[in-house]
Amino acid sequence: MTELYHPDNLHLSDVLYALADPSRLSLVRELTQETEIASTGFRSVQAARGTIAFHLKVLRLAGLTLTRLDGNRRLISLRREALESRFPGLLDAVLTGFVR
Amino acid sequence: MTELYHPDNLHLSDVLYALADPSRLSLVRELTQETEIASTGFRSVQAARGTIAFHLKVLRLAGLTLTRLDGNRRLISLRREALESRFPGLLDAVLTGFVR
Repeated sequence: MTELYHPDNLHLSDVLYALADPSRLSLVRELTQETEIASTGFRSVQAARGTIAFHLKVLRLAGLTLTRLDGNRRLISLRREALESRFPGLLDAVLTGFVR
Repeated sequence: MTELYHPDNLHLSDVLYALADPSRLSLVRELTQETEIASTGFRSVQAARGTIAFHLKVLRLAGLTLTRLDGNRRLISLRREALESRFPGLLDAVLTGFVR
């Protein structure tokens, strides 16, 4: 099975840039509420499928998400442990700021 | 005395975008160590004066910094209270992630 590229080393600039877009932040918030979401199953962002796919790619390349291929489907999950280990408290602080 | 524009309402996307650049993050970190720094007095970023001025403008427009005009000088300080009140823990989390 082909696997998509995921960075081993997370870089703060990439993570902050990825989170600086409100649509991507909505996708990330949705991912905090589920174990895994199909790339076509996000509900928080109203956009063309290609736009969502683009945002999901930015999140994956920044190291925020894991995209697992399952047949024709792409299943997305948050890389919580990698994020928390590299940037303790960052995701929570961002999501708190987003909700308010 | 002319005053520069500073936003009253801070937006998460603007703040994250501003912090997503390593040079701007270096300027912000330097500002955490001083009360105020002249726009020509930053030591952490080696770049042309115009480049520094651009980064300082992005930081000001994102609401991260206050730029005070003093004759021909521009004195920059961090808007710690505004940031902490609007995005609790965010700046600390970002700076911790930057140092590591």
